[in-house]
Amino acid sequence: MTWIYVLDLFGTMVFAISGVLTAIDNKFDPVGSIIIGAVTAIGGGTLRDVLIGETPVGWMKDLNYIYAITIAVILSYIFKGGILKLKKSMFLFDTVGIGLFTILGLQKTLGVGLSIPVALLMGVVSAVFGGVIRDVLTNRVPLIFRSEIYATACLAGGIVFVGFSYSTLHPNLAMGISMLTVMVIRYLAIKNNWSMSQQ
Amino acid sequence: MTWIYVLDLFGTMVFAISGVLTAIDNKFDPVGSIIIGAVTAIGGGTLRDVLIGETPVGWMKDLNYIYAITIAVILSYIFKGGILKLKKSMFLFDTVGIGLFTILGLQKTLGVGLSIPVALLMGVVSAVFGGVIRDVLTNRVPLIFRSEIYATACLAGGIVFVGFSYSTLHPNLAMGISMLTVMVIRYLAIKNNWSMSQQ
Amino acid sequence: MTWIYVLDLFGTMVFAISGVLTAIDNKFDPVGSIIIGAVTAIGGGTLRDVLIGETPVGWMKDLNYIYAITIAVILSYIFKGGILKLKKSMFLFDTVGIGLFTILGLQKTLGVGLSIPVALLMGVVSAVFGGVIRDVLTNRVPLIFRSEIYATACLAGGIVFVGFSYSTLHPNLAMGISMLTVMVIRYLAIKNNWSMSQQ
Repeated sequence: MTWIYVLDLFGTMVFAISGVLTAIDNKFDPVGSIIIGAVTAIGGGTLRDVLIGETPVGWMKDLNYIYAITIAVILSYIFKGGILKLKKSMFLFDTVGIGLFTILGLQKTLGVGLSIPVALLMGVVSAVFGGVIRDVLTNRVPLIFRSEIYATACLAGGIVFVGFSYSTLHPNLAMGISMLTVMVIRYLAIKNNWSMSQQ
Repeated sequence: MTWIYVLDLFGTMVFAISGVLTAIDNKFDPVGSIIIGAVTAIGGGTLRDVLIGETPVGWMKDLNYIYAITIAVILSYIFKGGILKLKKSMFLFDTVGIGLFTILGLQKTLGVGLSIPVALLMGVVSAVFGGVIRDVLTNRVPLIFRSEIYATACLAGGIVFVGFSYSTLHPNLAMGISMLTVMVIRYLAIKNNWSMSQQ
Repeated sequence: MTWIYVLDLFGTMVFAISGVLTAIDNKFDPVGSIIIGAVTAIGGGTLRDVLIGETPVGWMKDLNYIYAITIAVILSYIFKGGILKLKKSMFLFDTVGIGLFTILGLQKTLGVGLSIPVALLMGVVSAVFGGVIRDVLTNRVPLIFRSEIYATACLAGGIVFVGFSYSTLHPNLAMGISMLTVMVIRYLAIKNNWSMSQQ
């Protein structure tokens, strides 16, 4: 499962970078930007862990998450302009991130013995609530409420993953296909409705 | 206790419908409206469970709450106009809901061994914080902070229930009278101060 | 540790008073003001306890915290004008409060076996997130995101405390020096940049 762990840390970094850049855009001080970056990266998983009773929450038990966020913050400040030019790559990474966070959140929820519908919901919460908390803290109506595709894509990916769990497909392959589902739905949505790309 | 369980599911549906209608009024997308409906319905009880350490939170252990919210969402979209005409009935149901949620939250908190003052607070939190979280997510100052009667009525109902617990009155009757207390206080408040009905 | 317990209750009162006065300033009703006062006072510690899994959260197990907040609310309403004239003293008390809350939060987090970096973060969360939740509930961008000194001072005090824990210094003295660090940093920041005093 090492590649999943690496992807998870990588997704955490990408989410943190996007949070920090949003905060800088909003003229936040460095400390505020770091908090926003961290909340964006780990807020969804933290809420999931609190709700399902898996406390202390996950990132507290593995310092690599704090290190990943720290590196992300430093990279954000050093390569601020450069990262903004990489918007397309960032979008790709971000979509990989929400796909992965959905499946990992789903698995963790099933792992504590909760039902599939609850696990699907917690998968979506893991993927999107970091952004919701970020938006609440910066006093904006959360994006998720204005653009349905984000959460819907996660839900669809989660359902695909649950479906494959009844097959003999290798779990890693099932995870890959599920993440691809999230990415394709989101990509198609943006292709066919350009207003969404202005989010 | 079956009628209490039925009332609880019914209260959940009413809260969810009121949340969805608020979201539709705010031109939220369907996914956003569903999230707002769910948060309004189970947000208060979820916060209570997290604070008193009863995790996984209650609705995760009984799929009927998810089903109740799903039905509420469907009803909201089908009978949107009709429900708005039923404003008076909705108000009645909503008041039954906050009365019931107050007493159930109070009982659950006492059940984990916490003190009466804490249980009274958690009763009020169960009843009103779904609405608070809804307002925070939709970027408005929570109603509860502008109109004191809502929380005060819950607190009064909770105190009445605690008082009866020292008597020989049948618990179900005590619960009925406590819920009636919440309803009467809220009704009188609105009767005597019409500005509150504009909430 | 009795003097620390007394200071803790005292800090809770000061935070509650500052919360209530903010709410009155915002023309909140009494019930709303009480909620804001309570959230400001215990919100940070509550969030810390939820995240590290120490539930039911701390103030639920010791009614003195509810009493302290109750007294604070009453004092706020009786001496409203008088307290506002005591702005300088309030600032002093408030700074003592955040220094103390930082160290107590840090200690509690270490006490459940979590690492020093996590404990430092939870110390800062204990001290500043009551104010963040207050600002979110009153629909403002949290102060902490606009003024970096507040959180930075807490972090510095926490690091000093951790440093002393490797020395033979008496813990109470280490705590005193750490709190003084928070106070001095905050004082110097305000002395040298008056715009911060307008918070």
